[in-house]
Amino acid sequence: MRRSIDLNADLGEGFGAWQMGHDDRLITMVTSANLACGFHAGDPAIMQKNVAKAAALGVNVGAHPGAPDLAGFGRRPMAADPHEVANWVLYQLGAMSAFTRAAGIGLAHVKLHGYLYNQAYHDADLARAVARAVKSFEPGLRVFCPPGSAMLVEASAAGLPVAKEAFVDRAYLADGTLAPRALAGAVITEAAEVAARAVSLVRDGRIATLDGAWLDLEPDTLCLHGDTPGAVAVAAAVGRALGEAGVQVRPL
Amino acid sequence: MRRSIDLNADLGEGFGAWQMGHDDRLITMVTSANLACGFHAGDPAIMQKNVAKAAALGVNVGAHPGAPDLAGFGRRPMAADPHEVANWVLYQLGAMSAFTRAAGIGLAHVKLHGYLYNQAYHDADLARAVARAVKSFEPGLRVFCPPGSAMLVEASAAGLPVAKEAFVDRAYLADGTLAPRALAGAVITEAAEVAARAVSLVRDGRIATLDGAWLDLEPDTLCLHGDTPGAVAVAAAVGRALGEAGVQVRPL
Amino acid sequence: MRRSIDLNADLGEGFGAWQMGHDDRLITMVTSANLACGFHAGDPAIMQKNVAKAAALGVNVGAHPGAPDLAGFGRRPMAADPHEVANWVLYQLGAMSAFTRAAGIGLAHVKLHGYLYNQAYHDADLARAVARAVKSFEPGLRVFCPPGSAMLVEASAAGLPVAKEAFVDRAYLADGTLAPRALAGAVITEAAEVAARAVSLVRDGRIATLDGAWLDLEPDTLCLHGDTPGAVAVAAAVGRALGEAGVQVRPL
Amino acid sequence: MRRSIDLNADLGEGFGAWQMGHDDRLITMVTSANLACGFHAGDPAIMQKNVAKAAALGVNVGAHPGAPDLAGFGRRPMAADPHEVANWVLYQLGAMSAFTRAAGIGLAHVKLHGYLYNQAYHDADLARAVARAVKSFEPGLRVFCPPGSAMLVEASAAGLPVAKEAFVDRAYLADGTLAPRALAGAVITEAAEVAARAVSLVRDGRIATLDGAWLDLEPDTLCLHGDTPGAVAVAAAVGRALGEAGVQVRPL
Repeated sequence: MRRSIDLNADLGEGFGAWQMGHDDRLITMVTSANLACGFHAGDPAIMQKNVAKAAALGVNVGAHPGAPDLAGFGRRPMAADPHEVANWVLYQLGAMSAFTRAAGIGLAHVKLHGYLYNQAYHDADLARAVARAVKSFEPGLRVFCPPGSAMLVEASAAGLPVAKEAFVDRAYLADGTLAPRALAGAVITEAAEVAARAVSLVRDGRIATLDGAWLDLEPDTLCLHGDTPGAVAVAAAVGRALGEAGVQVRPL
Repeated sequence: MRRSIDLNADLGEGFGAWQMGHDDRLITMVTSANLACGFHAGDPAIMQKNVAKAAALGVNVGAHPGAPDLAGFGRRPMAADPHEVANWVLYQLGAMSAFTRAAGIGLAHVKLHGYLYNQAYHDADLARAVARAVKSFEPGLRVFCPPGSAMLVEASAAGLPVAKEAFVDRAYLADGTLAPRALAGAVITEAAEVAARAVSLVRDGRIATLDGAWLDLEPDTLCLHGDTPGAVAVAAAVGRALGEAGVQVRPL
Repeated sequence: MRRSIDLNADLGEGFGAWQMGHDDRLITMVTSANLACGFHAGDPAIMQKNVAKAAALGVNVGAHPGAPDLAGFGRRPMAADPHEVANWVLYQLGAMSAFTRAAGIGLAHVKLHGYLYNQAYHDADLARAVARAVKSFEPGLRVFCPPGSAMLVEASAAGLPVAKEAFVDRAYLADGTLAPRALAGAVITEAAEVAARAVSLVRDGRIATLDGAWLDLEPDTLCLHGDTPGAVAVAAAVGRALGEAGVQVRPL
Repeated sequence: MRRSIDLNADLGEGFGAWQMGHDDRLITMVTSANLACGFHAGDPAIMQKNVAKAAALGVNVGAHPGAPDLAGFGRRPMAADPHEVANWVLYQLGAMSAFTRAAGIGLAHVKLHGYLYNQAYHDADLARAVARAVKSFEPGLRVFCPPGSAMLVEASAAGLPVAKEAFVDRAYLADGTLAPRALAGAVITEAAEVAARAVSLVRDGRIATLDGAWLDLEPDTLCLHGDTPGAVAVAAAVGRALGEAGVQVRPL
């Protein structure tokens, strides 16, 4: 049984005059901040500001690269060959790492965003191209991946450190994928329930699926969503419940 | 009198399906390639391709950051405070350095593009912010700057290595600035004349200005334009003339 | 003394996944909606949705064209000659009018956004180019302009219908310009005070300036800001106060 | 047998400082210009310039709307529901029509670009949404569509005028689709052969397919590609051959 866990959130997803989510609060409640890199969201000013905050708080900074699609927030499927996606990832890793270098800290991890994250679950060619790009940039950079994904397989095969990620507010299916949002019960919004799932995921390493099975996930890091109305309350409840269960929240 | 000189050109300034200039030819004729970083031109695929070519040819790769203005090619004056511009520069330095790291080479220099280059000639606050950003990213990164510019003063004051840059196909005024393009004689297109100016700039360190004075420039690197119709012929003529004058073309 | 007034707000200023302001509430409280056209904010989906709402509510739809600058929200000064700006305006007028045509309503007016609005206050060449563009598109399209502006002069000279616009939550200076936001008292946030100013502007046609004079504005339309925290409460207070003063809120 | 035919080309596909193809020559050789509307290519300045040229030459102006994808030139498959695509089309129809109105001419037709053109060949829901959007904008606007396409069926069903379009420099398969570019013989570059195909398409209404059948196309308009190296020579050869065959080139 784990005695500690990393908590991560996707932050810095505004753009220009537009804000998204509750960055200022959530960055104080997580141990890993996945910061948008300018392709699906984020801009140089937002990146600089959040890196500085994370550095001051001792929060790990990760790059959160997405598809070049501001209008679709990087969620829209967009055809691109693995080599092209690898270049998108390299570009964004570099951009983010400039801000961490300027802030005197290291880049701790990378986590794909939106469509790229989903696509690299199943698509081994894409996952391999991304893994090679990450390795060519920094062989010690940790990759956050969902358990059971091609991304996890390929990152491991490339010799990259990995962290298995579970979502505390999304129901799973027995095959290990997230239940589609359209299904009843797919998204859990009640803070106490999310907190109980977080404890179960860490203590037991597994979770009941929407279709009635038990799924072993054994996560190294739990993802808190930052853009939902109750995000701050949920994050607080998760932190509290983990503490009460004797689980220490700390960076990887 | 100098026995060697660096030749640079702004390359990789296409975007997506669009091309600009004569990259494939010019990259074989220069010792420093200033590659666009995606803000005024360039995209991840173009950056990756040109870095790979430069690495294979032994050409130094520099970042050529511009304002975030694809529609205006980074030439359009655009209000931004020095801190914001510093973040634009950091972002682009990082993005380009990801491709040089992946290619196993170093990033050799940085040269501002278009409006930023012009603005940092006079604007000491901007130049200082840029110099600090460069230094925070990499204290040994060389900055290409025009002689007489605030950028040269501030980069030097920050302890950054610099290279003084002269333009072989543009006429100067006695105050050291480029003659406005609207003036007759401001742009020199005849290959033999450009070549003669290149030799004079290197051998004598100075050039006759359009308004009839002699201007000491003592350049460390000469800029060849890549997007003019005769760019390849001009570059060839410059290379030949320097060779005949006993000047070796080699990287800094 | 006026017995009626138009109330307008800048709406539809989200982009993709990002929202701005309180569109859903404010569109029910105004008689003219100035909708962003995709250059500084707004996208086809947002434009279509707000045009449909305005049509259902009987609210006049105006185009609110800005500079092509999503990253700067169209507020950043950006050099462009009047002919180029005229093309920006034409493009956006057409784009918005496609949605009003599809919804079976007309385009009622045009109001420049941000930097263009400010620039056309003083710059007669720009204002003239915009007026000609508007006229070439639709000679009967009303132009919202600040009293005292070049835009008002040039739109009138072109034979276009105009509406003089005053801001209820911004202090003026004696020369007719808005007090810079940095000045104490430049932005009025208290709902009751804003409402009192609205009544004064309509009933008396004038307002006390921050530097202690009286300024005749005689507005035809009052602008409510939609992106401030208290925007909805302020709009409600303004509507109520105008009603109590016997002023009917109705479209031009 | 037809005695006349329309010739069209996709023009105005530059962006900002970037050019594409041979607009200045080709616009004098066609009777219909399909002008990019700013989403995959084109910008307000380019649109205004080409509309003015077309108006002076008596060339029909059509809108050539694409997906919002400058980086991928609108060719990259990109998930979007039909309703969203309909809004993309409406936006661009309106934008282009502002320039035709300002030039005192009408908008003659619309032709989808790239991925949208290909997708609307097979996808009836998409084609229907586009047809409805076009009709809501202007019920008399002609739609250029490939023979055999869902777009042709849906535009006709909506009561819109249509024009069947054939490509003179691309081989077809027996099922009516274009032969994939990867197949030998899929792209015809030799001017005389392209010209002979143009004559055959007009005179006989049919063409031999790459897989050895005869395909009835009966085109109303022939598409000349504008972005290939030999585009101008091919267009000249096509025009000459049609003239010699007694076919008049004239707008629909």
